[in-house]
Amino acid sequence: MSPTGEGLRERRRRETRQEIHAAALRLARRHGFDKVTIEMISTEAGVSPRTFFNYFPNKEAAAVFGPRELSSEAAAAFVAAGPARPGEVLRDLTRLLLRQLAESPPERRDMHDIFALAHEHPGVLAAMLAQFDTFRTGVAATVAERMGRQPDDEVPNLIASVALTAVRTGLERWSRDEPVDGEDSPVPYVERSVALLHTLLAP
Amino acid sequence: MSPTGEGLRERRRRETRQEIHAAALRLARRHGFDKVTIEMISTEAGVSPRTFFNYFPNKEAAAVFGPRELSSEAAAAFVAAGPARPGEVLRDLTRLLLRQLAESPPERRDMHDIFALAHEHPGVLAAMLAQFDTFRTGVAATVAERMGRQPDDEVPNLIASVALTAVRTGLERWSRDEPVDGEDSPVPYVERSVALLHTLLAP
Repeated sequence: MSPTGEGLRERRRRETRQEIHAAALRLARRHGFDKVTIEMISTEAGVSPRTFFNYFPNKEAAAVFGPRELSSEAAAAFVAAGPARPGEVLRDLTRLLLRQLAESPPERRDMHDIFALAHEHPGVLAAMLAQFDTFRTGVAATVAERMGRQPDDEVPNLIASVALTAVRTGLERWSRDEPVDGEDSPVPYVERSVALLHTLLAP
Repeated sequence: MSPTGEGLRERRRRETRQEIHAAALRLARRHGFDKVTIEMISTEAGVSPRTFFNYFPNKEAAAVFGPRELSSEAAAAFVAAGPARPGEVLRDLTRLLLRQLAESPPERRDMHDIFALAHEHPGVLAAMLAQFDTFRTGVAATVAERMGRQPDDEVPNLIASVALTAVRTGLERWSRDEPVDGEDSPVPYVERSVALLHTLLAP
């Protein structure tokens, strides 16, 4: 096991998934998304189409791929901190998400292209929304576990939704901005979205 | 024009859309969603398959159909109220959404079945998420108009996302609850979600 609690097999799977995703984006830039086929993506990534389907159901899902879950170690530490007021749980969750984003930030250009593809292709948008929702459901389950509540309970679901709304909004703004020298992290953008959310709901 | 600002043609379109949606849900209850075809839905709703496709791209979209936009009169009044602090705009938006929900509430049983179908069928979930997102984008544009900002600006998008998160969470809880005699409105559920959101983000 590596320090992040990830076995070799898991790491290989993660790398292959990432390579297929990168290949899908590269080909979409080169030929336009409509012209890209699963065969082309597989060849570009050096895998068989059969392997492709072990990772993604279609090219839309391959194009939008992003994190689908919290790292298992971070989630375990978060749960172990135990019950707290909802506002505190939300603050801890936001910190965890920001740390995860700082440790493995996406490429700005990739995020830009993913949001642009989602804007143009309803199928890509659907895949992106489905992926966000899978992530949200998993985060809500982790929050529920920490709070000793059911996964479908309203409070953990609101906490997860609010935190991920900030992440999505921050990432979207970051992806549209022009890169500034020496400062190319999405973290300040998501931090600003979190601060804005607090302003919104302040009494 | 009716008092809601809706012409006859628009009203007929709305009614036809609603009938197709109701037929899709009825058939899903009767036969299971997998067995339902667009031909069956069209026959049940008394329209041709060609008419079906004027309203919905597929059976998943027909099953999850719900409001896709604010009523034009309510949106106009909201915009006319003019710029205000983000927290106030959010409060007005929440009130508007609650009023719209009180005036034309969905059936609890329909909401229950829609969420259950989305839980079981990834295609239905994708259609539901796409519909939420269309609604959210439209609401964000209305909020932006009121605030004199761009539709893709961060603040209107956060306001729309937070308000609709409360609506979705409240509706989902309402749809799972047992009906209580004489009290079958989703409004108190959404109100509670709104109150919880404020608690979450209170300093």
